Amino acid sequence: MNARTAAESLTIMSELVLPGHTNPFDNLLGGQLMYWMDIAAAICAVRHSGMPSMTVSVDNLSFKTQVKRGSTVTIEAKVTRAFTSSMEIHIQAWTAYLDHTARELSNEAYFTFVALDAEGKPAKVPELIPETEQEKILYQGAMRRRQLRLILSGKMKADDAQELKEIFK
Amino acid sequence: MNARTAAESLTIMSELVLPGHTNPFDNLLGGQLMYWMDIAAAICAVRHSGMPSMTVSVDNLSFKTQVKRGSTVTIEAKVTRAFTSSMEIHIQAWTAYLDHTARELSNEAYFTFVALDAEGKPAKVPELIPETEQEKILYQGAMRRRQLRLILSGKMKADDAQELKEIFK
Amino acid sequence: MNARTAAESLTIMSELVLPGHTNPFDNLLGGQLMYWMDIAAAICAVRHSGMPSMTVSVDNLSFKTQVKRGSTVTIEAKVTRAFTSSMEIHIQAWTAYLDHTARELSNEAYFTFVALDAEGKPAKVPELIPETEQEKILYQGAMRRRQLRLILSGKMKADDAQELKEIFK
Amino acid sequence: MNARTAAESLTIMSELVLPGHTNPFDNLLGGQLMYWMDIAAAICAVRHSGMPSMTVSVDNLSFKTQVKRGSTVTIEAKVTRAFTSSMEIHIQAWTAYLDHTARELSNEAYFTFVALDAEGKPAKVPELIPETEQEKILYQGAMRRRQLRLILSGKMKADDAQELKEIFK
Amino acid sequence: MNARTAAESLTIMSELVLPGHTNPFDNLLGGQLMYWMDIAAAICAVRHSGMPSMTVSVDNLSFKTQVKRGSTVTIEAKVTRAFTSSMEIHIQAWTAYLDHTARELSNEAYFTFVALDAEGKPAKVPELIPETEQEKILYQGAMRRRQLRLILSGKMKADDAQELKEIFK
Amino acid sequence: MNARTAAESLTIMSELVLPGHTNPFDNLLGGQLMYWMDIAAAICAVRHSGMPSMTVSVDNLSFKTQVKRGSTVTIEAKVTRAFTSSMEIHIQAWTAYLDHTARELSNEAYFTFVALDAEGKPAKVPELIPETEQEKILYQGAMRRRQLRLILSGKMKADDAQELKEIFK
Repeated sequence: MNARTAAESLTIMSELVLPGHTNPFDNLLGGQLMYWMDIAAAICAVRHSGMPSMTVSVDNLSFKTQVKRGSTVTIEAKVTRAFTSSMEIHIQAWTAYLDHTARELSNEAYFTFVALDAEGKPAKVPELIPETEQEKILYQGAMRRRQLRLILSGKMKADDAQELKEIFK
Repeated sequence: MNARTAAESLTIMSELVLPGHTNPFDNLLGGQLMYWMDIAAAICAVRHSGMPSMTVSVDNLSFKTQVKRGSTVTIEAKVTRAFTSSMEIHIQAWTAYLDHTARELSNEAYFTFVALDAEGKPAKVPELIPETEQEKILYQGAMRRRQLRLILSGKMKADDAQELKEIFK
Repeated sequence: MNARTAAESLTIMSELVLPGHTNPFDNLLGGQLMYWMDIAAAICAVRHSGMPSMTVSVDNLSFKTQVKRGSTVTIEAKVTRAFTSSMEIHIQAWTAYLDHTARELSNEAYFTFVALDAEGKPAKVPELIPETEQEKILYQGAMRRRQLRLILSGKMKADDAQELKEIFK
Repeated sequence: MNARTAAESLTIMSELVLPGHTNPFDNLLGGQLMYWMDIAAAICAVRHSGMPSMTVSVDNLSFKTQVKRGSTVTIEAKVTRAFTSSMEIHIQAWTAYLDHTARELSNEAYFTFVALDAEGKPAKVPELIPETEQEKILYQGAMRRRQLRLILSGKMKADDAQELKEIFK
Repeated sequence: MNARTAAESLTIMSELVLPGHTNPFDNLLGGQLMYWMDIAAAICAVRHSGMPSMTVSVDNLSFKTQVKRGSTVTIEAKVTRAFTSSMEIHIQAWTAYLDHTARELSNEAYFTFVALDAEGKPAKVPELIPETEQEKILYQGAMRRRQLRLILSGKMKADDAQELKEIFK
Repeated sequence: MNARTAAESLTIMSELVLPGHTNPFDNLLGGQLMYWMDIAAAICAVRHSGMPSMTVSVDNLSFKTQVKRGSTVTIEAKVTRAFTSSMEIHIQAWTAYLDHTARELSNEAYFTFVALDAEGKPAKVPELIPETEQEKILYQGAMRRRQLRLILSGKMKADDAQELKEIFK
């Protein structure tokens, strides 16, 4: 099983904010954006692993601006790091209103997916090779974010999270 | 503006997992669950604040089990604590397959919403009065989770997060 | 097969009236409300019977007020009485606009579901034990409403409908 | 305002039962059929009245057979009678699986719509002129069904329902 | 396998343009109309062939007017001609706003479907017998349109398209 | 108004074929693909023109393979040429099943969009500068395809279509 680069599974999804996607105040509904992000992340995970993959966690999903009806949304999903059978995927959503040369970063999130074999059990995935400077930073941070998830879900003790403790020492 | 209890805005949403809600492997799609959770959290925020409210962040969203087609999903959303114009909302999703007396906790998450005034600017919300033992634990933890969100989004220095530092000291 | 109370299968479904749920005049579309009611009733029937269940009839579905975009809708479904393999379910929809302490009853209906065994044939369901005063009234009326449905569908002669004849004598 | 025939506003809606329209057992979901029926009835009401119209009640909606995925559904909506500002609409749904020459009547219902003027108040609608034998029978029965709706919603005393009492005397 | 007339498989689909069907400027979204047309054409193909059928091409789909929210759309689909296992289907969409006696032709298109046997392979379909004057014109033109599709997809040389060359000679 | 390259408005949309997107035989529904293509083309037109844009025609939309449930679809939309207020957009859809390195071209189409000013009238759009060899071929062919559309819609005489006559002479 050969390691893969982030570029190999980069997933881009462009969407137009239609009336059926908005909240009662004519801005993009948070849940609709999450739905799109989950699809983009799922495609990215399938491309990296070559296997069916399912969502196991979502963290640090932020909404920086209100996205109004008629905007275009461009979602970019990239694997940051693979851990045995799971993949952390970084998502960015860029929005623009008509003049798309002035797009802004409206949302970010980290999704974790696990690849499944034919019996629906977790399956080993290829490693991720970071190439660009930003990919290397995301790769490093992935370990810290993983420890945080494990502590918050009660699967790790805070004391054992070496990388995370660095921030608070 | 009177403080309110968590029970006053408790929101329950029951859904049936239909073929249109599933991934290609006949299990509930992660993005569909997030969509439902966001609606439940939005209703809860509107009930607590009496104002239009929008999603600002989602954290620690976990998927503990695969939820198969035909299952019933019961989502419960509760305000854990209010901070000036924002509300942290704890979501739990319980699933059952036919025999609903044996339902299990399939998902949890923390959503943060902000209330908006008539001009779409953040507006002050009522305080939250925790009543039960579990509500008091969630109320205490809310400060720690808030510091974590502020640090991760670069709006607070790790060194200033007193409550959070307690875990790692 | 033990009899069950109405409280055991009570189903609550909260929804937010989004632009995608409205008619061209920005009020909740009748068909959308019916769709939600049918899901709530189906969950309630599955909870009472522990079996897959399908809609066999809908009666006395009333729309008392127009429900505007941005309202919250709370649907409550309760079994009123079981007849061999069928269950009558009473549905109420309560709506509120921001201030949910002033919610009003916007819709009511009676749905009838039948439970199905593994071959898709009607299967025996548990009896319903009415507990509250209102549940007892609904339980009594269920026989009268059933006779009316049988007469209107040509499966019973008006002359044989003892309970129903009481009203018109 | 000229009276109109039923043929003038006859509305036909054909649909294909796709996976997104089914319940977990691959049959047409009751709520989906109701959604389609409500749209067909709304179009019929708009055609008869020439005004925006909204659902006020649904009665005697029956499900005679299970409609499986891949079936074609043909919904026919016809005004049976007009009462000042309201219209009773008879709906029939015919289904077929591939061989559409052998279609069967799977569902029937009576919808009542009210026409609205520019301020959203009930507006006078044209009278309905029944032409065929079946239209005349439906026209006669409409008065009886209306009395039943008024009694069941507490707006008429059983004793005043002359047409209805005929059945039970 | 007996030949069939166009009238035997004529398919009518009426729809109401709801907020969930529009673009950000409150007019019917092009893609939504295409979705409806494809369903209508699929039903028409299934009715003519008595077999599952799938879309193989769409041509000359035109949008003549903007269709505003609240309009009613009536789609009519008719087989124009059958070629071994494929059927050309002519679609017209008529729209009206409240006053449906003044409907106008807003869209036209030619869809081609192929019938599939139980293994998913192309299957022979009944011939089409044109009856009316307009059906005969459409039947004649079908050969010319088919040659154009074959040339444009590289499956026929322009020089061999006898019927088509007539127009340009 | 500066001319723009095709690369500047290139639009990529990745989608996962979910059960809610399929026909009754578990393959991607033709109408669903058209819906996605129309959104991708609309975003591309908005990016090129910087103005709201609406669909005016669709041609040569081909379905080369059946796309099964669980596949990933990547839609690429590119402006081929601008004509005063209209833009021809070339769409390609690539599909893959798990192993996305072996994706295949499943669909192609030409969409024409028109840009609209604030009053909803056609507005002048920037010219398109073709750069790559393929873009130049598409740019040349655009004139021929435009003549064909004008002839087929009765807005041009076959005799005046110089570029088109070249093929058949």
